[in-house]
Amino acid sequence: MQTFGLMVATAEGIGILHELTGVIARRGGNIVSVDIQGEVAGEARTFFEIEMTANPQELVDELATLPIVREAALVKTLQAIYGTRIIIAGGGAQVGQVALGAISEADRHNIRGERISVDTIPLVGEAPIADAVRGVARLSRARALVLAGVIMGGDIERAVREVREQGLIVVSLNMAGNVPEAADLVVTDPVQAGVMTVMAVASTAKFSIGQLNRRVF
Amino acid sequence: MQTFGLMVATAEGIGILHELTGVIARRGGNIVSVDIQGEVAGEARTFFEIEMTANPQELVDELATLPIVREAALVKTLQAIYGTRIIIAGGGAQVGQVALGAISEADRHNIRGERISVDTIPLVGEAPIADAVRGVARLSRARALVLAGVIMGGDIERAVREVREQGLIVVSLNMAGNVPEAADLVVTDPVQAGVMTVMAVASTAKFSIGQLNRRVF
Repeated sequence: MQTFGLMVATAEGIGILHELTGVIARRGGNIVSVDIQGEVAGEARTFFEIEMTANPQELVDELATLPIVREAALVKTLQAIYGTRIIIAGGGAQVGQVALGAISEADRHNIRGERISVDTIPLVGEAPIADAVRGVARLSRARALVLAGVIMGGDIERAVREVREQGLIVVSLNMAGNVPEAADLVVTDPVQAGVMTVMAVASTAKFSIGQLNRRVF
Repeated sequence: MQTFGLMVATAEGIGILHELTGVIARRGGNIVSVDIQGEVAGEARTFFEIEMTANPQELVDELATLPIVREAALVKTLQAIYGTRIIIAGGGAQVGQVALGAISEADRHNIRGERISVDTIPLVGEAPIADAVRGVARLSRARALVLAGVIMGGDIERAVREVREQGLIVVSLNMAGNVPEAADLVVTDPVQAGVMTVMAVASTAKFSIGQLNRRVF
């Protein structure tokens, strides 16, 4: 089983994704992700990441024969280009400091051939932050979340417990509210929080949250 | 025409996306984006963002009757949760400083109800950075790219010209190589580069790159 990237250029229109996925399904392809690029100069591009045992070139050749398809080609996967994502959400001041640590540490891993992205959103308020926590489960390639603020609780705590059950690592700054109680790891220094989170998802780091002998730093 | 988010929980398997998109196409839905969450506890979730004139609840009800579907529900769109994205790529030291400026400025807009995310990847080398530049065109909700480094040229410059033609705003730090010549805007201070890029995509900012009377700051 191999994973490969596939770009298909078509006109924009209703039913195109249905037609493309039909060909992919008949060839036994399991679609892992889909990215749709809106129409530019009368052309829409759809990028698939597909797991398949058969030769992907035969799939490309078949797609290229469809009347709706202008071009079909194998491309790099977004996993190969941008890799695993960590997401940082919360107050702007703290999100920025966590990002500094995380970007610096991701740089050290990416130089050795790994791919780790550091994505952020500064937000205020319980409901927008809870939405952002739950939304991380929908973000492709996201593995860990850092909550950076001075007080977070209520529905944000429930959202943290939900996404941890879905396999996401959650790191919290040491802050007021009960989000720290719900997190995998609690870190006081925001730069260290960013560094530790990247180390926790990096395959080139000898570090795993499960092996630490304490949960609060 | 309205855009709405749709979550469909199913078993994982080949052909499921084809079956779901068939129902959406028959109801006249234009699929803007698809996010597939890998199987957790025997269940896979697919999130669609769909433009449609008809009542979305009727689509949800029809999907819920399919034997493969365990649950279908309307949800918030990722655009509503995370909003427009700016992407910062390049050397870790500079990416971090651009991110600080961008996150701080995004915070000020998001507090007023807008949604802007700041996403980053630290990278080294012409080919990985050129891949990251071209890849931004595939990233949903990405509107602007900042290139942060000390020297960038060659294939990165070609990639910058390509993605600008696809409608992306490209900001470059003032650096060696010919990427600055190819960019929309050249900024010397990395914090200011981050702030200006967020202002350029924000709808709450009175700032537009097209209205500036110079291109280099």
